[in-house]
Amino acid sequence: MSGLVKDLARLIGDNNVLFQPEDLLAYANDATHYFRTQLPDAVVLPSSTQEIARVQAYAYEHQIPVTPRGAGSGLSGGATPVKGGIVVDTKRLNRIVEIDRANMVAQVEGGAVLQNFHRAVEERGLFYPPDPQSMSVCTLGGNVATRAGGPRGVKYGTTGNYVTGLEVVLPDGSVIKTGGKFVKQSVGYDLTHLMTGSEGTLGIITGVTVRLVPLPPAHRTVIVVCETLDQAAEIVSEIIARGAVPSMLEFLIKLAITVMNNYVSQPLPTDGEAFLLMEMDGTPAQVESDVQTIKEICRDMKAQEVLEILDEKAAQSYWNARSNIYPLIMTIFNRCTSEDITVPRSRIPDLVRAVQEIAASVGIMIGLAGHAGDGNMHPTVLQTEINDEMAARANKAIELMIRRGLELGGTISGEHGIGIHKQEYLAWELDQVQIELMKRIKAAFDPRGIMNPGKIWVEGGAQ
Amino acid sequence: MSGLVKDLARLIGDNNVLFQPEDLLAYANDATHYFRTQLPDAVVLPSSTQEIARVQAYAYEHQIPVTPRGAGSGLSGGATPVKGGIVVDTKRLNRIVEIDRANMVAQVEGGAVLQNFHRAVEERGLFYPPDPQSMSVCTLGGNVATRAGGPRGVKYGTTGNYVTGLEVVLPDGSVIKTGGKFVKQSVGYDLTHLMTGSEGTLGIITGVTVRLVPLPPAHRTVIVVCETLDQAAEIVSEIIARGAVPSMLEFLIKLAITVMNNYVSQPLPTDGEAFLLMEMDGTPAQVESDVQTIKEICRDMKAQEVLEILDEKAAQSYWNARSNIYPLIMTIFNRCTSEDITVPRSRIPDLVRAVQEIAASVGIMIGLAGHAGDGNMHPTVLQTEINDEMAARANKAIELMIRRGLELGGTISGEHGIGIHKQEYLAWELDQVQIELMKRIKAAFDPRGIMNPGKIWVEGGAQ
Repeated sequence: MSGLVKDLARLIGDNNVLFQPEDLLAYANDATHYFRTQLPDAVVLPSSTQEIARVQAYAYEHQIPVTPRGAGSGLSGGATPVKGGIVVDTKRLNRIVEIDRANMVAQVEGGAVLQNFHRAVEERGLFYPPDPQSMSVCTLGGNVATRAGGPRGVKYGTTGNYVTGLEVVLPDGSVIKTGGKFVKQSVGYDLTHLMTGSEGTLGIITGVTVRLVPLPPAHRTVIVVCETLDQAAEIVSEIIARGAVPSMLEFLIKLAITVMNNYVSQPLPTDGEAFLLMEMDGTPAQVESDVQTIKEICRDMKAQEVLEILDEKAAQSYWNARSNIYPLIMTIFNRCTSEDITVPRSRIPDLVRAVQEIAASVGIMIGLAGHAGDGNMHPTVLQTEINDEMAARANKAIELMIRRGLELGGTISGEHGIGIHKQEYLAWELDQVQIELMKRIKAAFDPRGIMNPGKIWVEGGAQ
Repeated sequence: MSGLVKDLARLIGDNNVLFQPEDLLAYANDATHYFRTQLPDAVVLPSSTQEIARVQAYAYEHQIPVTPRGAGSGLSGGATPVKGGIVVDTKRLNRIVEIDRANMVAQVEGGAVLQNFHRAVEERGLFYPPDPQSMSVCTLGGNVATRAGGPRGVKYGTTGNYVTGLEVVLPDGSVIKTGGKFVKQSVGYDLTHLMTGSEGTLGIITGVTVRLVPLPPAHRTVIVVCETLDQAAEIVSEIIARGAVPSMLEFLIKLAITVMNNYVSQPLPTDGEAFLLMEMDGTPAQVESDVQTIKEICRDMKAQEVLEILDEKAAQSYWNARSNIYPLIMTIFNRCTSEDITVPRSRIPDLVRAVQEIAASVGIMIGLAGHAGDGNMHPTVLQTEINDEMAARANKAIELMIRRGLELGGTISGEHGIGIHKQEYLAWELDQVQIELMKRIKAAFDPRGIMNPGKIWVEGGAQ
């Protein structure tokens, strides 16, 4: 047992420290295993903010890197301990502290699992819209750290639109509470939203206060089968322009439907090239009127088929399969790299055409799925084998897609974050002045550079 | 003509620099004239981001304080040049750059006047909800700088919920662009929301991108006359709890109605002690159903009277009078200090009772009006004469109200900002660790301390 492990055991109890190589291995990466470089030196499993603060103060004193971790379901390498040190697993900090119906807000600990939280608020007739599609495992603290999005962005926005307050353990182990149970506040700098999307580089999120909305009483799933990808993209644009905003509006290609069909009770037709999977929610009258508008649009624009899924269970099975599309596709291909390009919604048709052209010109498969309604697409580069030539092609395709997304007025990451995965592209979107300013903010929080080091920007650049 | 004025004239042209004492006087304070301490040394009226950048780079080089100014309608002293130097008036930077219907976003220059912007988007069937009640003069850049709220917070949130991107001139004169025309982004730190509410202390906001929503097709104004303040507060709580969320839900006392009645075509009854002024919006069916719910609640809770204002013009006259309540009351009293306490919505009855008790115990008049629906109240201390004893009572009352607001889980400022006005209370809400962190962030942006100095925190404290 190393000195570090002994010290940590002394601080929070030896049942709460992992140090065997087989345990450490499970913490060496997030869902992007290919970014794994080394094992952490120790993993801690604290059960309270105070325990995290104690570990953090120790790490600060001894200048040991700390990597915060929620479920490890991130897709950017954000929770990968690239410099070793301590991984702080927040999963035991998982209480739902309060669901305050009168004020329509809730408070949870940072490690609370999103699905448990969704269920608890829905039982009380309330709704928390964000769902980054890894609900069964992902944590609210992790959602805040990555500014997680998901399919409901189109109507409801993302995590950042719901967080009203945070409890944060700062790099030196001190604890701050920001915001509160109100939607209005103008008291100094908005640290709540500065922490949101900070990817564990400014502190550890140990408490989250979010606002809730009333649970919509009705919803309906509609699936549109389209002859071409272009047609699907044009229909998305038209739906948004006509103001019949679905709560979810997903774009899928035939490959995705084929894979999903193995996991649903009523397989979908696979004679189209692209599919739109939508849910409308609201009052029954609102839902009915939105469904009619969407049917009209699909008729006018000559969609191949429009399926209204009235069977609640069938609808749920499609959404479950959609949630799992990334792991399902991973079972077929040796490597899948999911991009996260977001463009202004009206540019979706341009982006879809560009992705098809890039796949053809580079000679690699690119799966297309994404939250088309809010402009956030996840073109996924699919590698059938792992070799240098394939890797070079994949990189080429990713670079071309990112360039094109930026040309269309978009951003390199809508919801996954930069982590390790997009570091080399950061300077394509932000100029050096802005990156340097962010580094100075980082230094204001973390002068010793111990908090999730090696993320967001490539180290060793000018500071 | 001073060397400073000559230099500024050289940088941006002599028509764009003011330096005569009578001109400078107009820039020595915002709407809180009692915070005026000295004249600025010069005022510049730039017409472009480049001109602002030039002035800012000059100020940085020569270490001259810069105070950014929108309309000067702020209520916290934020635009008061307490250290002299240069005031940057952004009013010529007032173009509406683009209203992008397909993506439901708009881009404006920082000095664009809110009312012009509202009209322009509404002509296109779109809606920008924030309105801090000074719409005819206030600027979008000023709204962002103070994280401005207003009555629509209850249903629609505040400025921070709509800003998706900014153009900012940093203290050293460099220019950054944050965010963009999309609702999802996870690319480094959220500088857009860090700038929002930064009160001109981190840079000058020269461009603003906001998301828009569809213009609600129907709305209806309802006025509830209540026997007591308590009753009105309880009705507010019940309305929110029942989920019939109005687009605006204002709380007013008899004094406010009496003043407003001089300016409306159909005077309101003044036999109640408290009044709720509400607007419902949405589809016609939604509005109808919300109005019925509210009528039911008022009947059950024995409100004195419920007036449904069907005449569009009459309704508008009440809302106009409400917007002007602060200046109207200012014509009667020698000094009015409008507080900005925000509590979780369910605590409104407690806050209303506390304010009445404080007024009685201290022996001073306190007007009560505010955006009750979102918990943001503006109790206004009314001084009939200006003398030391009255001032001491006013301060005592303000302190007691702020303490009570914090005890109720609230915040010292919902939407006005800290500026000068609330500096001494900042440490009542935020602990020293958080204030010191904010100061380090300030230093990361503004190492020379030239950007709107003397605001948010009391200077000379530990740093």
